[in-house]
Amino acid sequence: MLNQIDYMSLAIKEAIKAKNKDEVPVGAIIVGGCGNVIAKAHNLVETRNDPTCHAEKLVIEKALKITGQRFLNDCDIWVTLEPCVMCAGLIKQTRIRRLYYGAEDKKGGAIDNGVRVFLDNKTRIEIYSGFSADQSERLLKDFFYNIR
Amino acid sequence: MLNQIDYMSLAIKEAIKAKNKDEVPVGAIIVGGCGNVIAKAHNLVETRNDPTCHAEKLVIEKALKITGQRFLNDCDIWVTLEPCVMCAGLIKQTRIRRLYYGAEDKKGGAIDNGVRVFLDNKTRIEIYSGFSADQSERLLKDFFYNIR
Repeated sequence: MLNQIDYMSLAIKEAIKAKNKDEVPVGAIIVGGCGNVIAKAHNLVETRNDPTCHAEKLVIEKALKITGQRFLNDCDIWVTLEPCVMCAGLIKQTRIRRLYYGAEDKKGGAIDNGVRVFLDNKTRIEIYSGFSADQSERLLKDFFYNIR
Repeated sequence: MLNQIDYMSLAIKEAIKAKNKDEVPVGAIIVGGCGNVIAKAHNLVETRNDPTCHAEKLVIEKALKITGQRFLNDCDIWVTLEPCVMCAGLIKQTRIRRLYYGAEDKKGGAIDNGVRVFLDNKTRIEIYSGFSADQSERLLKDFFYNIR
């Protein structure tokens, strides 16, 4: 089993893969109950010309396919940026056990910003934020600085 | 161009297809800017053993594929039940122009219930509810009564 910094560094590696494709650098991984990495993905909105191809959505789709499970309730998701409403909804529907995210997204985030999807406490999920947040945020800031 | 009742009746037909597959009866259609029906879909959560296969998600995926458009900003979605957080997020990401829904979902809805995704007025979307709501709700009530 890797430690928390190692898991987030894998998600950041995915974000760098996105950056190298001129995609907004966001990456995500899903970790199973035994600490095994089940799936990795990065943002592919531009590549696929599909505004729904966020890293979280792609990694959840992969994990459902790989595990063949109906729910990911023994799995954790690690993502470099605070998820949006759509991705928070996907996390909710698939009953992911724990969400670990890096940088806050004050504009598009829906966990600790915006509509705060899990604030009603109706969903059994643990949420941890701020993991390697500086590194994730730096990637995003550099990306948007360079394309401005 | 069909009228509003006709559009919702097409979504209800989709809901009935779901019911006939022992799926929770929810249906959705997407209508283009000229009033043309672009895509139809119904809930397939059980069939695909995937908790994300809601009618709205499937119809949005179809419409993106069929139109080849990056955004569905000239399209309207008609759905028999108030969308959940995930589907509201998909509607937001794909910039759908108008949402018409039938029955309210006091437990799982995220439009006029729950986190009310569009309440912040940050998204350009028109929302209309209550279309053939009785018929959509009757389908759902009968379904849950029969499997209780």
